[in-house]
Amino acid sequence: MELKSLTEQKSLLAILPPGKRARLHRLLFEFGPGNGTLMLLPIDQGIEHGPRDFFPNPASKDPDYQFRLAAEAGYSALACQIGMAEKHYPDYAGRVPLILKVNGKTDIPSSAKAFSSCNAGVEDAVRLGADAVGYTLYVGSPRQDEDLAQLRQVRQDCDRFGMPLVVWSYPRGEAIDAKGGAGSFYAIDYAARMAMEMGADIVKLNMPKINPEKDKDSPAPYNEMEVSQEEAIRHCVESAGRSLVVLSGGSKVDDETVLGHTRMVMEAGGSGVIFGRNVWQREWSDALEIIGQIKETLLSSVRRTP
Amino acid sequence: MELKSLTEQKSLLAILPPGKRARLHRLLFEFGPGNGTLMLLPIDQGIEHGPRDFFPNPASKDPDYQFRLAAEAGYSALACQIGMAEKHYPDYAGRVPLILKVNGKTDIPSSAKAFSSCNAGVEDAVRLGADAVGYTLYVGSPRQDEDLAQLRQVRQDCDRFGMPLVVWSYPRGEAIDAKGGAGSFYAIDYAARMAMEMGADIVKLNMPKINPEKDKDSPAPYNEMEVSQEEAIRHCVESAGRSLVVLSGGSKVDDETVLGHTRMVMEAGGSGVIFGRNVWQREWSDALEIIGQIKETLLSSVRRTP
Amino acid sequence: MELKSLTEQKSLLAILPPGKRARLHRLLFEFGPGNGTLMLLPIDQGIEHGPRDFFPNPASKDPDYQFRLAAEAGYSALACQIGMAEKHYPDYAGRVPLILKVNGKTDIPSSAKAFSSCNAGVEDAVRLGADAVGYTLYVGSPRQDEDLAQLRQVRQDCDRFGMPLVVWSYPRGEAIDAKGGAGSFYAIDYAARMAMEMGADIVKLNMPKINPEKDKDSPAPYNEMEVSQEEAIRHCVESAGRSLVVLSGGSKVDDETVLGHTRMVMEAGGSGVIFGRNVWQREWSDALEIIGQIKETLLSSVRRTP
Amino acid sequence: MELKSLTEQKSLLAILPPGKRARLHRLLFEFGPGNGTLMLLPIDQGIEHGPRDFFPNPASKDPDYQFRLAAEAGYSALACQIGMAEKHYPDYAGRVPLILKVNGKTDIPSSAKAFSSCNAGVEDAVRLGADAVGYTLYVGSPRQDEDLAQLRQVRQDCDRFGMPLVVWSYPRGEAIDAKGGAGSFYAIDYAARMAMEMGADIVKLNMPKINPEKDKDSPAPYNEMEVSQEEAIRHCVESAGRSLVVLSGGSKVDDETVLGHTRMVMEAGGSGVIFGRNVWQREWSDALEIIGQIKETLLSSVRRTP
Amino acid sequence: MELKSLTEQKSLLAILPPGKRARLHRLLFEFGPGNGTLMLLPIDQGIEHGPRDFFPNPASKDPDYQFRLAAEAGYSALACQIGMAEKHYPDYAGRVPLILKVNGKTDIPSSAKAFSSCNAGVEDAVRLGADAVGYTLYVGSPRQDEDLAQLRQVRQDCDRFGMPLVVWSYPRGEAIDAKGGAGSFYAIDYAARMAMEMGADIVKLNMPKINPEKDKDSPAPYNEMEVSQEEAIRHCVESAGRSLVVLSGGSKVDDETVLGHTRMVMEAGGSGVIFGRNVWQREWSDALEIIGQIKETLLSSVRRTP
Repeated sequence: MELKSLTEQKSLLAILPPGKRARLHRLLFEFGPGNGTLMLLPIDQGIEHGPRDFFPNPASKDPDYQFRLAAEAGYSALACQIGMAEKHYPDYAGRVPLILKVNGKTDIPSSAKAFSSCNAGVEDAVRLGADAVGYTLYVGSPRQDEDLAQLRQVRQDCDRFGMPLVVWSYPRGEAIDAKGGAGSFYAIDYAARMAMEMGADIVKLNMPKINPEKDKDSPAPYNEMEVSQEEAIRHCVESAGRSLVVLSGGSKVDDETVLGHTRMVMEAGGSGVIFGRNVWQREWSDALEIIGQIKETLLSSVRRTP
Repeated sequence: MELKSLTEQKSLLAILPPGKRARLHRLLFEFGPGNGTLMLLPIDQGIEHGPRDFFPNPASKDPDYQFRLAAEAGYSALACQIGMAEKHYPDYAGRVPLILKVNGKTDIPSSAKAFSSCNAGVEDAVRLGADAVGYTLYVGSPRQDEDLAQLRQVRQDCDRFGMPLVVWSYPRGEAIDAKGGAGSFYAIDYAARMAMEMGADIVKLNMPKINPEKDKDSPAPYNEMEVSQEEAIRHCVESAGRSLVVLSGGSKVDDETVLGHTRMVMEAGGSGVIFGRNVWQREWSDALEIIGQIKETLLSSVRRTP
Repeated sequence: MELKSLTEQKSLLAILPPGKRARLHRLLFEFGPGNGTLMLLPIDQGIEHGPRDFFPNPASKDPDYQFRLAAEAGYSALACQIGMAEKHYPDYAGRVPLILKVNGKTDIPSSAKAFSSCNAGVEDAVRLGADAVGYTLYVGSPRQDEDLAQLRQVRQDCDRFGMPLVVWSYPRGEAIDAKGGAGSFYAIDYAARMAMEMGADIVKLNMPKINPEKDKDSPAPYNEMEVSQEEAIRHCVESAGRSLVVLSGGSKVDDETVLGHTRMVMEAGGSGVIFGRNVWQREWSDALEIIGQIKETLLSSVRRTP
Repeated sequence: MELKSLTEQKSLLAILPPGKRARLHRLLFEFGPGNGTLMLLPIDQGIEHGPRDFFPNPASKDPDYQFRLAAEAGYSALACQIGMAEKHYPDYAGRVPLILKVNGKTDIPSSAKAFSSCNAGVEDAVRLGADAVGYTLYVGSPRQDEDLAQLRQVRQDCDRFGMPLVVWSYPRGEAIDAKGGAGSFYAIDYAARMAMEMGADIVKLNMPKINPEKDKDSPAPYNEMEVSQEEAIRHCVESAGRSLVVLSGGSKVDDETVLGHTRMVMEAGGSGVIFGRNVWQREWSDALEIIGQIKETLLSSVRRTP
Repeated sequence: MELKSLTEQKSLLAILPPGKRARLHRLLFEFGPGNGTLMLLPIDQGIEHGPRDFFPNPASKDPDYQFRLAAEAGYSALACQIGMAEKHYPDYAGRVPLILKVNGKTDIPSSAKAFSSCNAGVEDAVRLGADAVGYTLYVGSPRQDEDLAQLRQVRQDCDRFGMPLVVWSYPRGEAIDAKGGAGSFYAIDYAARMAMEMGADIVKLNMPKINPEKDKDSPAPYNEMEVSQEEAIRHCVESAGRSLVVLSGGSKVDDETVLGHTRMVMEAGGSGVIFGRNVWQREWSDALEIIGQIKETLLSSVRRTP
């Protein structure tokens, strides 16, 4: 496809300033699969959902579990909030790159007007030796004006300190619910573009879900398009432009789906995956096994030119 | 007409401080038509409407398409958000002037109380070598107090750095809807004046639409005026005072309308056009053709004294 | 009357710090009537009402009309927003003092909770060589907390830079509407006091309108007072204490009313007038004529000790 | 009573840092009664109620009336807003200490969600040679979060500049109305404690009103307590801890009440009174007479150890 | 249990930067029980509930009562707001460590959208020689975005000054009320995790209350779990990770409950208790007696490795 080849004409690293380039190089080539792909471990569920996500595997309640997993299984990076970055990362500093997530919220109140305020900043990330900063953007929320203004500060500090910016780009809120929902192709595609437009170096996307019934509420031409999931994710990856795309996992699914989605995003031109519960809700040896398979899938993908 | 001649008595450039003058001179005389008119290429639809605007011409989804078009077809400048300015402009730096748009929003939530927060700043524009800054002002929105306060910061930074300020001056929100709508002569005329009052060097206006049925809801004397579209746009251009006026295109229309509107704004005393979808929703050769015709129209207009 | 003589015991200039004194001296004695009175020309209707105020005299749409009028007819000062101050004042710098109005708004949305945010600052005024700063305060608006906090910044910067502060003190909003309306003696009297309490050097007031029917809704004792318009305006001027009072004109009325109001405010102890539409909605020669009569009235008033 | 003796164990002055100690010493021992008690003259009614409070004694409309009264009758200090502090205090500088009130509002809108924003700051007070800063706190207002955050800035600046902090501690808003009202023992007692907790050096309280009917809505044990007014005010003074308490007057009452309340607050362990309308709504000689009686009452009270 | 042993693998002190380590060492080993446990005395009820909490023991109204108790009975630290820290702590400086609580509010308005704004800052704590800072976080409040953003500032200042951060982590607001209430296992468990995620060094928790009827409204799996209070508190302590947990007391209960809860939190892996009303609502000798028993319980617990 023409667009894809255009996208691949130039490496993202080649146009990034030195600080971002050095740090991103670490994630892409020195840790994880090491072939320019990204295998990221998120541990932000404790703030986003509360401790309930740890019940399926009680050991996972201690953050050391995920840190140890990230370091020993060879991840590209681990993403967490400030508390764990300050109290657990010191034990693993240098052994696995850190992505400091700078905003977050509980899921206790309604997310009709979702907005996630910053509880940390880029300077915290610099101080702690992180290699990237993570930001959750609620695309299309009625509070998007506050969100974009807040992201501006984070993005500008990233530019100032040469810190790569990873955007968790999530459609969210009552307005998107009325236009087909947060998981629709329309919504994810818009989210991909928004992250790119706002200066993301890496975009985290959910897998778009094709649902003809709900998609009728999306704006044209999405309301009438007939696309497969493969085509949809390819569109989304293209919408992210030069920003690298990593696919998010969501709640725990079977192994086949995990690996199938991994292949799908790589074939679509994506750069990797970020699976959390699908990994650390498993016992240690089970976790290592699925991680191995994911890594293998990433390694067997056409070498990415990030 | 008397007013027009008054307006032309003094060039805008002649009263601008050196930084603004140098940069604006680049847009007016060194790039684009080069006769003091402006041919601008906007690529902010990805944030304002989402990727759907790129479907008519899939190649346009890759921002490189528009950047290449702007550089090769000889535009006065290209306008985009920070993400593309950081990831695509480096490839074209020096080959086409950049207008960094510093605010924007998705169209997912209602625009009854429209407000577009800043996701970038004038310092970003300076750092990236841009020659102007773009700001979207929602004239008459119930949140105008926030908008004007935010514009103040942008305008003051423009004054500080000698950066020309381009205001996308759009009537918007439930209050203007109740007074004849965002596209009325009343609304556009007010928007032109507001941009000038707030310190715009260039004002982007939509073509006022004469609609006697809706215009009855406008305040006097607009509710009873009988004006042609030509007269209306002339009024609006005059309301912008010494601020240069460029006409906006909106969604794709036929070639005749594109060129007719171009002639109309120039005859009304305007300084140029800013057509996006009407240009880059076409295949490469078609795009070049219409661009050529637009440029010809601008070149054949009476030489502007900007 | 005792109070008036108390007020006149001490000149305002005598207690002002040097920066304010020097600039105010310019308005009071070097320009305009020159006898310590003030004849001010406002040109803020374009932002407050839109271009419709210029239709009765199309020439007035070009700001140069008012600037030329102010300079050639010999005004004490001209008041306008930042856009005109930057693009038109340069041609008249030194020929007529400038009052930079630092806030303003369109009248498109409801003013039930009126608030006018700052679109410029005192530093802008200093940079542009202005001799005073103008601020619109909406007395009694439900958003008064934001208004007073914003005015604080302006007032403090005025103190810092020695810049005289002119307060357009307007009762406004749903709460005052429920207590007799924005034009009542009660409302104007309170507005006069508020401006003085907040540190105004000059207060712009509307002429209080006696309306027994509506005044019944005002708090005691206003709801039962029987005062003439002359007595009412005298009370209001007294409420402004040492702050100089200029009377505002509003929409165009007949010559007799213009001159009658001028006399009335001077007899009440005021310091001058600020008529806009009543002046520049007239053709050039008509405008000069009424200006001449106003000036004569000011000159024939008992010499003010400002 | 045990608590009172505890309170008196240590002088407030003894624990204050030098700047606060020097300035408060001036109010307590160099001006006013001079025996460690406080006789304060407030002139903030013009902003809080408008000019209507001046009608009973027209001379009082000119702020010079109160300034002269404060200086000639020998007050501990006079409290007013920035406007009068800048335009009238210069004439009396050094002759009577100044308390600069830094927030205030009109009573035009509802006070259901009362909040009084700052229109001046501690630096203004320092610049003008004031000896204390006054702040109105609306205890229990739904906007208490903004109020406490704003007070923090004032308190921190007071700490930075060694400026004593006087808190007008007023229960206010719809929530306190539903719990027995702003004048109840419960409300005033809470207000006294809040001011102390927030760092007040001096607390201004209204006299608690015992009203068994309304007090039933107060939280336990207030809803069932049977206390006299004397006991209630003593409780409130104790709740203020080491912060000095001055009793507020409110609207004009008869002489006996004025003097009775003065005795009551002193017997309860308070430090003085702050009567406004009860003083300056009288003609000059009447005013001097009641002031003389108040001062005598303060002088005849047991010497306070402030 | 596996998790607990993991938690104990590494001391919190060992990973803290020097400033925090030095100050926390003081609380853990130099004051109070001195065996690495915490016995804290809170005196923030005056602001949170008003003076009514002091009526059961009138002596407690004078803050000196609690300060003296904390110093003479040998507490690890005393926690209070800025007013008492400035006016009472000077008498006890060095004799008992101070935790400065930097936010607080009255309980007069509804807490459906609870938010407690800062009335002091970390710099105040540093200036006053405090050894820790206290912050009340309302987990799950609809205003959590403001809360987390505010906590960020406090946490960053704590990092900057090496000041330990104690988080009063309280579920609160209408959303948590709809999910089983603020006292549920679900709510307290989430609150424990949130405090840890946000960077707390010490977390103050309420004892979770098992209430099958209300717990049905909690999210899975909490809605179906059958746990004892002992198991619940152990879960909560684990959710706090390396943050030390102190159990809060609430309103006065019988001695057995006080001591039982103390044992329970220590057995669950907690680090101590913070009882206020249960202590200082008693007469001096009674208070000393219960304090002695609490301290004995803490001393007899397995030595904590904080």
